[in-house]
Amino acid sequence: MSERLRIDPAHLIDASAALLGRLREHPPLVQCITNSVVTNFTANALLAIGAAPAMVDIREESGLFAGIAGGLLVNLGTPAEEQRDAAREAVAAASVAGTPWVLDPVAIGALPVRTALAHELVASRPTAIRGNASEIIALAGAGAGGRGVDAADSTDAAADAATSLALAHGSVVAVSGPVDLITDGRRTARIANGDALLTRVTGGGCALVAVTAAFLGASRDAGAAADGSTDAALLADPFVATVAATVVYTIAAELAASRSAGPGSFAVAFLDALATVAPADVLDRANVTVTDAAASAIASAITEPTTATAGA
Amino acid sequence: MSERLRIDPAHLIDASAALLGRLREHPPLVQCITNSVVTNFTANALLAIGAAPAMVDIREESGLFAGIAGGLLVNLGTPAEEQRDAAREAVAAASVAGTPWVLDPVAIGALPVRTALAHELVASRPTAIRGNASEIIALAGAGAGGRGVDAADSTDAAADAATSLALAHGSVVAVSGPVDLITDGRRTARIANGDALLTRVTGGGCALVAVTAAFLGASRDAGAAADGSTDAALLADPFVATVAATVVYTIAAELAASRSAGPGSFAVAFLDALATVAPADVLDRANVTVTDAAASAIASAITEPTTATAGA
Amino acid sequence: MSERLRIDPAHLIDASAALLGRLREHPPLVQCITNSVVTNFTANALLAIGAAPAMVDIREESGLFAGIAGGLLVNLGTPAEEQRDAAREAVAAASVAGTPWVLDPVAIGALPVRTALAHELVASRPTAIRGNASEIIALAGAGAGGRGVDAADSTDAAADAATSLALAHGSVVAVSGPVDLITDGRRTARIANGDALLTRVTGGGCALVAVTAAFLGASRDAGAAADGSTDAALLADPFVATVAATVVYTIAAELAASRSAGPGSFAVAFLDALATVAPADVLDRANVTVTDAAASAIASAITEPTTATAGA
Repeated sequence: MSERLRIDPAHLIDASAALLGRLREHPPLVQCITNSVVTNFTANALLAIGAAPAMVDIREESGLFAGIAGGLLVNLGTPAEEQRDAAREAVAAASVAGTPWVLDPVAIGALPVRTALAHELVASRPTAIRGNASEIIALAGAGAGGRGVDAADSTDAAADAATSLALAHGSVVAVSGPVDLITDGRRTARIANGDALLTRVTGGGCALVAVTAAFLGASRDAGAAADGSTDAALLADPFVATVAATVVYTIAAELAASRSAGPGSFAVAFLDALATVAPADVLDRANVTVTDAAASAIASAITEPTTATAGA
Repeated sequence: MSERLRIDPAHLIDASAALLGRLREHPPLVQCITNSVVTNFTANALLAIGAAPAMVDIREESGLFAGIAGGLLVNLGTPAEEQRDAAREAVAAASVAGTPWVLDPVAIGALPVRTALAHELVASRPTAIRGNASEIIALAGAGAGGRGVDAADSTDAAADAATSLALAHGSVVAVSGPVDLITDGRRTARIANGDALLTRVTGGGCALVAVTAAFLGASRDAGAAADGSTDAALLADPFVATVAATVVYTIAAELAASRSAGPGSFAVAFLDALATVAPADVLDRANVTVTDAAASAIASAITEPTTATAGA
Repeated sequence: MSERLRIDPAHLIDASAALLGRLREHPPLVQCITNSVVTNFTANALLAIGAAPAMVDIREESGLFAGIAGGLLVNLGTPAEEQRDAAREAVAAASVAGTPWVLDPVAIGALPVRTALAHELVASRPTAIRGNASEIIALAGAGAGGRGVDAADSTDAAADAATSLALAHGSVVAVSGPVDLITDGRRTARIANGDALLTRVTGGGCALVAVTAAFLGASRDAGAAADGSTDAALLADPFVATVAATVVYTIAAELAASRSAGPGSFAVAFLDALATVAPADVLDRANVTVTDAAASAIASAITEPTTATAGA
């Protein structure tokens, strides 16, 4: 691993605060192809943080839109037939246009339709992938998957699977849990912010994936405006953007939890907090550590056929 | 009617409190096939009460999932073509696996697609059926149905239809209204808890049906763990579980109404109350009466061809 | 323009207050064919204001229901294939039955499926059309449309397009923005109530269109009960009903904004405010001006072929 890949946690936190400011100055247009349970909460979370959501998930429109969107979310929670076709169209167009996109492989493993689609789409090299430990293990081909949106496996149990997946597809992989784990296959960040109430609100996890697409959109804009400095390169790095989304989102959850009497009032306070969480909150509260990705996983990835395209 | 069928209201209330505790200790996985308006509120209500919701409503997945779920909800509010097929798959699999399932025949009567599907599905003998008076009367074949989700008929006007339906299909039948009526064709409970604000929030009725599926799941677990005692048999009785769901849900509504300024704040306070309503609240506040089912309805059911399968 | 068409703002405001009272006394049944993001918020807004929502959006049911509904909303935000057919059925039946209906051409212009459907449906002469400036310009055939649900053009930039559209199809046309513009092609009202928080909640605009359908339903009832007086004719006028819906809705937003800490708590307070906003609030707070429609647009409309059916 080259020295230039190392990132200090303090730099990650500074960059997270900077990307939040940038997202609000230049709201990215985020296309959401997502499940029917969380569409409303997801759109409200995006509006609250400062992005512009658009649910364009039908055939003959989703591809067109993915070409002009700032970021794309593909969530497989309720993948009805027309939506599956729309997801394929959008991913193909995002790949051509360079639109950053995030895959949320909800409940894959035991359920065949979404599992097959997740494996098909991941071959198009998502900018980021986010799931719970069971889903990431299933997508990496190393387990049988979850029982819905619960995580039966712990976050660290999925560390090797996450690294392998990241290297195989050139993606940033985020594993959701009490401590979020994010890796690009070379570097791994662990984020210990958040609140358990997020798991008592449906869409608490799904909306973070949409917000990740928004930060990837802001990050791409930062890259386009880059002046060649180290800081600009940092803002344009998808690994940094994925960490930033997670840090901002989970800190907003902490702020909201302190004002909540239960899951109903938490959901309301959380949307308020997403709208008001400031770069200063990020600097004050972020709890981030960074390590090299597990050497074993990297070694394993290098010797396995699925890594033919890795290392990009 | 045999003596053993009689249940004292005090025993019903004790069992309701016990099932609430049991549900929270062993969260049932509740599969929801429901309408597009209430998916989010339904999932949040299930999470709040302590269950694990999963919306699996596409072809080639819904049957698989119904085989492993703790309970299944089939709501016919927006029955698009793919969802209708998914409902058929899920009901067939639930029947084979013994998964308890609840039918919510939203707005049947005047609308032909859902009416035909409701009559088709009810033949698979749902564990429970819940609707307003118009819907229950329409499903029993005795009326023209409602004008959407409103109840044009009063709860007691549907008492005979509910009893007939219960005997014809071996189901517990619940009629929603200011006083909820629940019958298994032998015994009828009336529950006078709740608040009118529940009718000002979309999904206020639909989510109760999902919560009923959760209590049926907890009840089945109780049955599997039964020690042969009278109390254990009570917890495993679908009639008791349906009453328990209704009592807990409507008491949570009362607790929330006292903290609300209108339907918006009520919906929020209600989710908070579902998360905090305690067995002690059930013992304090439950307003339940029990009678034998109407003799006339039973007599009528016994002489009608549709009761060929009754008495199970 | 004939003298009788002129309406004083004070009369418009009085009529708005009267229609609000009438809607609550005789709740109209409002059929919603709308996008998957806002179904829940839309239904809750309708319940809060006092109407009865029903989402009937599948083939072989939507037409039947449109024949008995008090008002119909067709929103093109996520027009999946089955919903497109349901929209066609419903519009055809509404036209036959005289059910007032409103078209919300969400994000038309750049996206081909919804754009084609909007042009097809508008030929059936909606009672009202509501969109942002970009959408109205696109529907009038005078621009390339928006980038989703944002308005790239200002409200007044769409004034001529709105007037042309109104005259071409005999519709009331409403352009949403910081100041709402409403015209029937002869008279134009501008409403300066509201709060920017409405744009931070998904469905903030879509639910207004549903509420417009509710007021059109109440207005039609008023027409049926008319005693021939000037006041009765005013209440039965779709232009007046569209203004009334907008005034009531945006005043509720003002009341809610004063009790909100951000978009999450605003959405909750807004539903509470819709349930409590009173005719007296309308009289106190309404900020309405009325002018003749732009003469240039009328002249242009009269000389263009699309106005062959205008003047109705």
